Amino acid sequence: MILCDIGNSFLHFYYRGRVWREAKTQLTPKDPKEVIIFISVNEDSAKSLLDSHPYCFDLLPFVSLDTNYKGLGVDRIVACNAITDGVIVDAGSAITIDIMHQAIHLGGCIMPGISRYREMFSSIAVLDCEFNLGVALDTFPQNTKDAVSYGMLKSILLMIENLSKGKKIYFTGGDGKFLSRFFENCIYDDLLIFKGMQNIITNKIISKGIQL
Amino acid sequence: MILCDIGNSFLHFYYRGRVWREAKTQLTPKDPKEVIIFISVNEDSAKSLLDSHPYCFDLLPFVSLDTNYKGLGVDRIVACNAITDGVIVDAGSAITIDIMHQAIHLGGCIMPGISRYREMFSSIAVLDCEFNLGVALDTFPQNTKDAVSYGMLKSILLMIENLSKGKKIYFTGGDGKFLSRFFENCIYDDLLIFKGMQNIITNKIISKGIQL
Repeated sequence: MILCDIGNSFLHFYYRGRVWREAKTQLTPKDPKEVIIFISVNEDSAKSLLDSHPYCFDLLPFVSLDTNYKGLGVDRIVACNAITDGVIVDAGSAITIDIMHQAIHLGGCIMPGISRYREMFSSIAVLDCEFNLGVALDTFPQNTKDAVSYGMLKSILLMIENLSKGKKIYFTGGDGKFLSRFFENCIYDDLLIFKGMQNIITNKIISKGIQL
Repeated sequence: MILCDIGNSFLHFYYRGRVWREAKTQLTPKDPKEVIIFISVNEDSAKSLLDSHPYCFDLLPFVSLDTNYKGLGVDRIVACNAITDGVIVDAGSAITIDIMHQAIHLGGCIMPGISRYREMFSSIAVLDCEFNLGVALDTFPQNTKDAVSYGMLKSILLMIENLSKGKKIYFTGGDGKFLSRFFENCIYDDLLIFKGMQNIITNKIISKGIQL
């Protein structure tokens, strides 16, 4: 069984403890006897996967979450299935923050990802400078580079702190490891989404005797 | 005496309690007997002003501020001259936050303006939705529109709160009035920069007998 999380830019695979990513135009052949269980937020990439492998299984019909949130993306739903209590911070091109309490999703918010801030500032000529991701956060910035870096980083950290309120924080995504450095009661887990997929497979498919 | 703050988009004028703005290509004639005292962050617009009026005076040589910050824009320096203690939040296409204590500038930071957040999110297809600036900030968002609005607004408010720490907050700029609604110890003052100019004129020009 191979797990696959199809994002907007890449297809992310998990197989026997190993993770890797592939572009939709450069998919490698996989063992045709292994089922690829996938979730997808990108129809084109999903089609490429289906064309490349004879034995694929879309997990979507089995994905669910106890929430009042309308329009939650399947990737966020699946990540939330990985934990019962805590805050999930998925830091990619956007930063999503989701709050879980006793297996119930209480809500979530969305901020621009670090790369988006960089693009945004570079579009303002006078602020077009590299970020200093090592900017001191305990003193006031004293130049433009530090001022924009502080404005970006501190506002993200304040938001995560404000929403987590002592709960354990689960960081994932490309910038998750970097952001996790600023918190104590947290872990960085780049397998979070695959753990969520595995939980859904165990609880909603295998335990019910459904054949893959 | 007419005061003029030349920004990147418009020239902002102040004359006898009245403020208005003009585009650099559509400058109206002013009374040729009145001096126009200006500060500028845009060379082209400054040139247009000089071409349109016979009697202009650049305040820049008289502008100063007690600070360690390198590269502070003349508009921020002048606004800081309007107060001795407090936090100045200038909310335009960028949001600048500057901290003043006993007439000393302690530092400042820069965040994207509200319109820039909107552009950032609209570049992510799935998040391309209007903001809800009335989003509830005391509960977790329950849909995408509220999630991005909350992510933008709450992070700006947390940052202002974190930097002001009980000091009085002076809001100015296009979105200043809106942001001021969320704070108690604050005022909105769209004349802040002209008050700063007036203080510089009084303290560094008139009091020293310098002729305009």
